[in-house]
Amino acid sequence: MTSSAEKWYQQVRQQTLALTEDLSAEDMVVQSMPDASPAKWHLAHTSWFFEHFILQPYFQNYQCFNHHYQYLFNSYYDTVGSRHARPQRGLLSRPPLSDIMQYRQHVDSHISILLRQQHPAITDLLTIGLHHEMQHQELLLTDILHLLSHNPLAPALLAAQSQPSLNAAAAVSMICFDGGMAEIGAEAGSFSYDCENPRHSVYLAPFKLAHRPVTNAEWQDFISDGGYQNPLLWLSDGWHYCQSANWQAPLYWRNLDQQWHSFGFSGNQPLLPSAPVCHISYYEADAYARWAGKRLPREQEWEYATNLTQPPLQQANFLEQHIWQPTACSSQPNMEKLFGDVWEWCQSPYSAYPGFKPAQGALAEYNGKFMANQFVLRGGSCVSARQQLRSSYRNFFHPQQRWQFSGIRLAEDQ
Amino acid sequence: MTSSAEKWYQQVRQQTLALTEDLSAEDMVVQSMPDASPAKWHLAHTSWFFEHFILQPYFQNYQCFNHHYQYLFNSYYDTVGSRHARPQRGLLSRPPLSDIMQYRQHVDSHISILLRQQHPAITDLLTIGLHHEMQHQELLLTDILHLLSHNPLAPALLAAQSQPSLNAAAAVSMICFDGGMAEIGAEAGSFSYDCENPRHSVYLAPFKLAHRPVTNAEWQDFISDGGYQNPLLWLSDGWHYCQSANWQAPLYWRNLDQQWHSFGFSGNQPLLPSAPVCHISYYEADAYARWAGKRLPREQEWEYATNLTQPPLQQANFLEQHIWQPTACSSQPNMEKLFGDVWEWCQSPYSAYPGFKPAQGALAEYNGKFMANQFVLRGGSCVSARQQLRSSYRNFFHPQQRWQFSGIRLAEDQ
Amino acid sequence: MTSSAEKWYQQVRQQTLALTEDLSAEDMVVQSMPDASPAKWHLAHTSWFFEHFILQPYFQNYQCFNHHYQYLFNSYYDTVGSRHARPQRGLLSRPPLSDIMQYRQHVDSHISILLRQQHPAITDLLTIGLHHEMQHQELLLTDILHLLSHNPLAPALLAAQSQPSLNAAAAVSMICFDGGMAEIGAEAGSFSYDCENPRHSVYLAPFKLAHRPVTNAEWQDFISDGGYQNPLLWLSDGWHYCQSANWQAPLYWRNLDQQWHSFGFSGNQPLLPSAPVCHISYYEADAYARWAGKRLPREQEWEYATNLTQPPLQQANFLEQHIWQPTACSSQPNMEKLFGDVWEWCQSPYSAYPGFKPAQGALAEYNGKFMANQFVLRGGSCVSARQQLRSSYRNFFHPQQRWQFSGIRLAEDQ
Amino acid sequence: MTSSAEKWYQQVRQQTLALTEDLSAEDMVVQSMPDASPAKWHLAHTSWFFEHFILQPYFQNYQCFNHHYQYLFNSYYDTVGSRHARPQRGLLSRPPLSDIMQYRQHVDSHISILLRQQHPAITDLLTIGLHHEMQHQELLLTDILHLLSHNPLAPALLAAQSQPSLNAAAAVSMICFDGGMAEIGAEAGSFSYDCENPRHSVYLAPFKLAHRPVTNAEWQDFISDGGYQNPLLWLSDGWHYCQSANWQAPLYWRNLDQQWHSFGFSGNQPLLPSAPVCHISYYEADAYARWAGKRLPREQEWEYATNLTQPPLQQANFLEQHIWQPTACSSQPNMEKLFGDVWEWCQSPYSAYPGFKPAQGALAEYNGKFMANQFVLRGGSCVSARQQLRSSYRNFFHPQQRWQFSGIRLAEDQ
Repeated sequence: MTSSAEKWYQQVRQQTLALTEDLSAEDMVVQSMPDASPAKWHLAHTSWFFEHFILQPYFQNYQCFNHHYQYLFNSYYDTVGSRHARPQRGLLSRPPLSDIMQYRQHVDSHISILLRQQHPAITDLLTIGLHHEMQHQELLLTDILHLLSHNPLAPALLAAQSQPSLNAAAAVSMICFDGGMAEIGAEAGSFSYDCENPRHSVYLAPFKLAHRPVTNAEWQDFISDGGYQNPLLWLSDGWHYCQSANWQAPLYWRNLDQQWHSFGFSGNQPLLPSAPVCHISYYEADAYARWAGKRLPREQEWEYATNLTQPPLQQANFLEQHIWQPTACSSQPNMEKLFGDVWEWCQSPYSAYPGFKPAQGALAEYNGKFMANQFVLRGGSCVSARQQLRSSYRNFFHPQQRWQFSGIRLAEDQ
Repeated sequence: MTSSAEKWYQQVRQQTLALTEDLSAEDMVVQSMPDASPAKWHLAHTSWFFEHFILQPYFQNYQCFNHHYQYLFNSYYDTVGSRHARPQRGLLSRPPLSDIMQYRQHVDSHISILLRQQHPAITDLLTIGLHHEMQHQELLLTDILHLLSHNPLAPALLAAQSQPSLNAAAAVSMICFDGGMAEIGAEAGSFSYDCENPRHSVYLAPFKLAHRPVTNAEWQDFISDGGYQNPLLWLSDGWHYCQSANWQAPLYWRNLDQQWHSFGFSGNQPLLPSAPVCHISYYEADAYARWAGKRLPREQEWEYATNLTQPPLQQANFLEQHIWQPTACSSQPNMEKLFGDVWEWCQSPYSAYPGFKPAQGALAEYNGKFMANQFVLRGGSCVSARQQLRSSYRNFFHPQQRWQFSGIRLAEDQ
Repeated sequence: MTSSAEKWYQQVRQQTLALTEDLSAEDMVVQSMPDASPAKWHLAHTSWFFEHFILQPYFQNYQCFNHHYQYLFNSYYDTVGSRHARPQRGLLSRPPLSDIMQYRQHVDSHISILLRQQHPAITDLLTIGLHHEMQHQELLLTDILHLLSHNPLAPALLAAQSQPSLNAAAAVSMICFDGGMAEIGAEAGSFSYDCENPRHSVYLAPFKLAHRPVTNAEWQDFISDGGYQNPLLWLSDGWHYCQSANWQAPLYWRNLDQQWHSFGFSGNQPLLPSAPVCHISYYEADAYARWAGKRLPREQEWEYATNLTQPPLQQANFLEQHIWQPTACSSQPNMEKLFGDVWEWCQSPYSAYPGFKPAQGALAEYNGKFMANQFVLRGGSCVSARQQLRSSYRNFFHPQQRWQFSGIRLAEDQ
Repeated sequence: MTSSAEKWYQQVRQQTLALTEDLSAEDMVVQSMPDASPAKWHLAHTSWFFEHFILQPYFQNYQCFNHHYQYLFNSYYDTVGSRHARPQRGLLSRPPLSDIMQYRQHVDSHISILLRQQHPAITDLLTIGLHHEMQHQELLLTDILHLLSHNPLAPALLAAQSQPSLNAAAAVSMICFDGGMAEIGAEAGSFSYDCENPRHSVYLAPFKLAHRPVTNAEWQDFISDGGYQNPLLWLSDGWHYCQSANWQAPLYWRNLDQQWHSFGFSGNQPLLPSAPVCHISYYEADAYARWAGKRLPREQEWEYATNLTQPPLQQANFLEQHIWQPTACSSQPNMEKLFGDVWEWCQSPYSAYPGFKPAQGALAEYNGKFMANQFVLRGGSCVSARQQLRSSYRNFFHPQQRWQFSGIRLAEDQ
């Protein structure tokens, strides 16, 4: 373990704190729904992760910052023991934010000492801990946005974009891929989660993939055409959900002064027609694809196409751009936005790859136990940390969930 | 309107703020259940009450502090217009506490000006506004206690009582009252709510009333005797509730190290056997009375007995004592604790008195619309402001609610 | 015990069976909601009542018809032991209806033997058993109507009334009563339930009572005036219920071909404007009274007025008339319909009278345990057996329940 | 269309009726849960299917038996129009069973006429209608069993098996399969559903498949080892479900006299240790596999292995055997019971095959709209009609559902 590890550690940890700069202690204690967590909880839980999996086993004579935190800030690791119920995370007005900030410093300073000791056993744990922290950076932002969206004051954390593109996006172009035998899953030599493994062969029939995601303008056509009122477009479970939740538009769309706006980190802003539609459920994505006479991509198709086209990860619209909303699509029909902007729902349920073995120990619970009732999303969003993305990365959510930056790219059979 | 009104106004408003001295902004934003409200909301709503009912109609050219507050901090006045949904009060991380504190000052300074103008129309409104504020002082405390009770850290706002009484309470003595025709309801000449009016005649059969409330020690006997397991002791609705909520003891009782404790403003403390049992529902009170071969008092019996015995209001254990928990009963069998310590559940559903007319205007909604499915409690508690109590005061809650400082005094027929 | 007892027994038991003449076994097995019971269950439960409370203790060497029935057909008597869960009564396709018919005969033949033995202990039990059976006659009809109301075929058990009155009802006349000290509760010398006792004194302020119930025509005015949309007319709990259940009219009203109909035992029929409105909840009754500038009567006022005016019980529209729907009000403003047609919601919560003592043994559970969250109704309906009605009779339901034949008579203070 | 079609039609339709021989009209009207339907509804709906899809379009001047039935007995075809809500199917005491029996005859006689006219267009529709009817034969039985299972009388439709095998099943043997490229999906030339198509290539890694399903004896080991108490064995959603539903054993297992029994068509019977475990959810199957250090098969593995081993369909334990419960496994470790006895949960979510196109018209809704949140089961059960089974047949249910005859066969990677 070298000082580059320490630098990386500091950078990631600092990036988390930077996300909270415009948030008050009040913003950070509230939980807006059982699926979301308070920002304070994210700050504490990510520290608990390092404390529990690295400091307690490897730091000699480590003194816990507070023995209650083991219970309070465990997320879902049954191996670790009992834990505070998820829907009650928002009741923790104590410990105060200031204690959590001290907790972070306590953990950081001990991790630094350990890194300087160049303890060989912790390299992998540190890596997963930082990737874990990056996942929570995204969740912290999506959870805060959800909270602010319930505030009648429509608070803004960012200034509105000054000059959004008014050019129309290029008409969608379906790009052909040959398929055949393909290698899917994480490549050796760099970090990946257990669920991206093992790398394995699949056979893919020829398919086409849209050169860009579906845009807000296209989604308005779906709405105008009665997409939310026509059961024939929907999965059976999706239609029930749509009706019981009275969905009429994506999660954060609002009709103000007879014009569609969307709520985001800049508050309520007029829709940008050429930007990818965002905050839709799998059910909506699936209904749209049926309406459009297309289908959602399989995750293997997405990964194969991405490996072939090699989109430039560095230029994608990720968290670090600090735009935090999807940007306009190009007026040229070149493959774009596979990485960043919006997560892309795949028709693939989140399942084990052939030969899948969960990680060992408590981390065995990291991914495998969620392999039911969820669908895979690919490519990362405008609030994903760039470093965590790669073509094999598998995100997953329940088909009714909408508060992530989730969008849609169409596919079809050849 | 004289300067004594202004002094009173300042005193009550200051007392509200004093209750929050040991609370953080984080404590004050969270809502622990739909029945409870955040402390910040209580601070804002009580100010809104003065702004809406006094400043807007009577202060010339009054400028609202923030026009959103009309919507955010209306509690339940349909006459006033739409309002923020009650279960979502805890999502208001914005406006921040500091804004609410400024809002209070803004309202206070304008009320002061108005009071110095000696505007005749506002006397009654000021009085009801201050009584309203005192009601919310109690609710603020009960709501904060409920929040803290969900915190695994069991936070304490007060130091533990240093020397609680260890004397046993006197065995309960049933005191006889003759009954006959009695005048019930508010006496003219001082403030009362519409629901305490009109003063009217009732005929009361002879009855007996216990000289003190049921104690924690007696409640332990009820538990030991299987009181929570025997359906024959319970009302039908109560038994269903008891089973579905898995009640085994009063709300804040906890069995720690094989000993009953109760959670209160001093955190988890061993039960004081001679103090009144507290935080019980109507259903539990009713079951206890049946177990004891007695019954709950009617509210008219309670009021008649209180008017006859004239307990000294000034010496009762109210909010101002700053004990904020019920204190030990005396070892002498004299009538005690009719006022203060714990609200006493009556067998009387909350209903209109003969000839009842709701107050005019928006305040018509203050009491009348709650006259279904609730039971009356009498006498005030250790977190009630002394000034709001009187023998005719009618508090009311649903029979399953337990987070108020609610207890029980037994009665029986002669 | 004489042969008149046996005759009475046979008459009541026979009347129950007569109610099922037009019902199939299929009609009689289904349970349409947790509040309702299958007709087959009513037939069995009423027989169980005689078996459990009379035959088992008093018939020497009595052989149970089927020992499972003790469990299956106990309604709510915790003293008796565990029982089949109420919401699952509709799952009992077995035992078949034919077995239940045999069960009735088995019980009847043994009761006959016992009656001929002139066993002195059973007189009171027989009386309560028959009154209990009459209560279930009404419930059987209201439960069947509820079931049929869910059938898109709108089945009719009775032919439509051939010539319903088209005369308008007399405008409502408010009749004055002096009040003062009054004796309330059951008179000695004839059957009454424990909850009607003891007879006791109350003081009543002067009041007025409408000469007839509110009619369908008047209820249409309430609807037209936005009664179901105006929260200011409603109790707080009632308004929540009204909105969540989306009430727009009484339970069985249906707008067919732009005209209000109501579903009843004759299927869907045009509303009879001059008949009492029926199948309304307490919440609706209360809202109507507020809209009309009146109030609901107290149960003591109703009983006092009925005792004074002595309406002829024999001529009232009860079950035996076999009309089974409310009939038109007179065009003359004389006090009418205090008995029969519709139960009249009172503003009185169902509570214990002063000095109330529950019956002994298992029958202690008959009434007392329901004394929370329910309101009293008086006077009986067009599906009540005449013999069970008297001026002191107290019926009770939860304020949101609508499937009984419940209506409203207005009152006001003088 | 020849007389063989007519013979087939009559045979299938007759087989449906035969299933109801021991059921009363009361048994056939009740709905025991929203997932299940009354037997009467199954009888009507399968007839509606022929009437709506064949008679109405192809029978000249066809007179509907009853125009209400279009609404009452449509299951889920949104294309067809609105329909009676599924959870209210059990409220249809009318039309009576006798009408439904006439409806079946009406449809049957008209279909016969049409078949004799040898109308070419109806061949495919008749085939799907009969396969549809066979699916409902199985559902009728599973729904009736569910209803009877709620009856405290534990009714039996069949006599108990006289001499159940007492031999132990052979220890499980994991049989190796090479995998590689494989053709999956329906073969041309015989009936298949749209979701079994198109036949397509997949690449399968080498795997092993157990020679027989998991037995009751093995499941008891899982229970004894705390399988239902250990969250580490369960999927996250599964564990929540297990706890909220308080699962302790398969759906119909009952501990009577300290011995495990299972409820089935012969009532409560002692478990047969060597028979396949039945009535388990996907969550339980998955937890068991994890406990056993194995996994569930993929549906493609199951199909590939079945195609290779060619188990004799004719000898499998299907509906026609009239045993209606899983039978003992052999004491020899040869591949067995791939067909019949119990449906085998696969780890494969129910998804579209590459190139999937839904059937045209209303039948487009037959399968495709259920492709979310469900898992595939393969092989048929002891209550499946033999004719509908084939190696490509895909059944599907939600992972928490247990009332089907669902079991488990283990797999693992090589």
